[in-house]
Amino acid sequence: MLLGRVTGTVVASQKEPLMDGLTFLVVRQLGVDNTESGGYVVAVNAVGAGVGEVVMYASGSSARQTAVTQNRPCDAVIMAIVDTWEIDGETMYVK
Amino acid sequence: MLLGRVTGTVVASQKEPLMDGLTFLVVRQLGVDNTESGGYVVAVNAVGAGVGEVVMYASGSSARQTAVTQNRPCDAVIMAIVDTWEIDGETMYVK
Amino acid sequence: MLLGRVTGTVVASQKEPLMDGLTFLVVRQLGVDNTESGGYVVAVNAVGAGVGEVVMYASGSSARQTAVTQNRPCDAVIMAIVDTWEIDGETMYVK
Amino acid sequence: MLLGRVTGTVVASQKEPLMDGLTFLVVRQLGVDNTESGGYVVAVNAVGAGVGEVVMYASGSSARQTAVTQNRPCDAVIMAIVDTWEIDGETMYVK
Amino acid sequence: MLLGRVTGTVVASQKEPLMDGLTFLVVRQLGVDNTESGGYVVAVNAVGAGVGEVVMYASGSSARQTAVTQNRPCDAVIMAIVDTWEIDGETMYVK
Repeated sequence: MLLGRVTGTVVASQKEPLMDGLTFLVVRQLGVDNTESGGYVVAVNAVGAGVGEVVMYASGSSARQTAVTQNRPCDAVIMAIVDTWEIDGETMYVK
Repeated sequence: MLLGRVTGTVVASQKEPLMDGLTFLVVRQLGVDNTESGGYVVAVNAVGAGVGEVVMYASGSSARQTAVTQNRPCDAVIMAIVDTWEIDGETMYVK
Repeated sequence: MLLGRVTGTVVASQKEPLMDGLTFLVVRQLGVDNTESGGYVVAVNAVGAGVGEVVMYASGSSARQTAVTQNRPCDAVIMAIVDTWEIDGETMYVK
Repeated sequence: MLLGRVTGTVVASQKEPLMDGLTFLVVRQLGVDNTESGGYVVAVNAVGAGVGEVVMYASGSSARQTAVTQNRPCDAVIMAIVDTWEIDGETMYVK
Repeated sequence: MLLGRVTGTVVASQKEPLMDGLTFLVVRQLGVDNTESGGYVVAVNAVGAGVGEVVMYASGSSARQTAVTQNRPCDAVIMAIVDTWEIDGETMYVK
């Protein structure tokens, strides 16, 4: 999984029917020092995350292992909202 | 998923029979600021996207989870046509 | 899928038995402007491609969705020989 | 698999229920010369690794092939604690 | 698949039980010009390769399609020992 910050939303009315009802969020990847690294992904929201929140997301076939994404053409899913993380004993982020 | 702009088409008459009837589109990857990032992928068109349109595409095994790509040697699929996206409250693209 | 040019062959007599009888081709990745990008992959030849030809290849689990690669430890397959592609209305390559 | 050093922990109370009870560790990727390369991943701990330990981790669908990660939205797992590795006959790391 | 040279070994006594009995080799990636590119992977040895040998390895779920790696948390496998390869009619390597 990677850490990221939810920074936006994507609206797409014309889509593969299996994706109906899913929410697409733009997630910017975070480094372990809590700075944005430049990369992003559009991920399905499986945990009720909102814009501005720090999350973990899973990619590839693992992104289809949630109730909302199973058997759907989805290659990235937000599967957790992060409370805190620490590196070498130092807290890098607190919700 | 990633955002991209459909910029071209690929024609290939000699191919794995499972790919017969599918349309191959060249998709240039877009950054969240709606500029082309240099990367591209050739994706199967599962949603009737046309050249010039902004789309979302899924990669890997997730690209095989649509009606037209199931069980086929396809690792990228356009699964949505994008209407709009916004970042930090700012609209970056409108169809 | 990505575009590539077949530039060579690999011979390996000592291999996982499931790979017996398959042909391994070196494919250099092409950009959409039809120049070599530096990257390469060794792909199984599922469509009778020859050295010098421009092809499309699929990676990952999708590379196992052809008759010759099914259930084999193969992560890249040539699944089409390209006739032509065009970008923004301009033909970039003709076979 | 890649080599990495466990450098931190992530706490996420609001998550996909399938992830309940799993431990998330921040793993910084190591080069074969035992220096940190800058990349990281958040991996599920399948082998009781602790902060500071050098480990091997698997990514993608292979990360779901352990008892604790099966059928869960997990794309990285620590599947071994490294005792030692050597390169060209030289020991690069000893636990 | 990618080309690589086996340059070392990893020992890990504390590991996911499904990995018991497997040999972990450090493989440095080779370019098509037979020079090391800097990247590496730790791969399971499915073909009796030794340190110094040039091999092909498969990644991702395809790495689990050998007798020794099936259903195990393994994302890279050496599935062939290379005898020779040629590029544009020139031999780049002979065993």
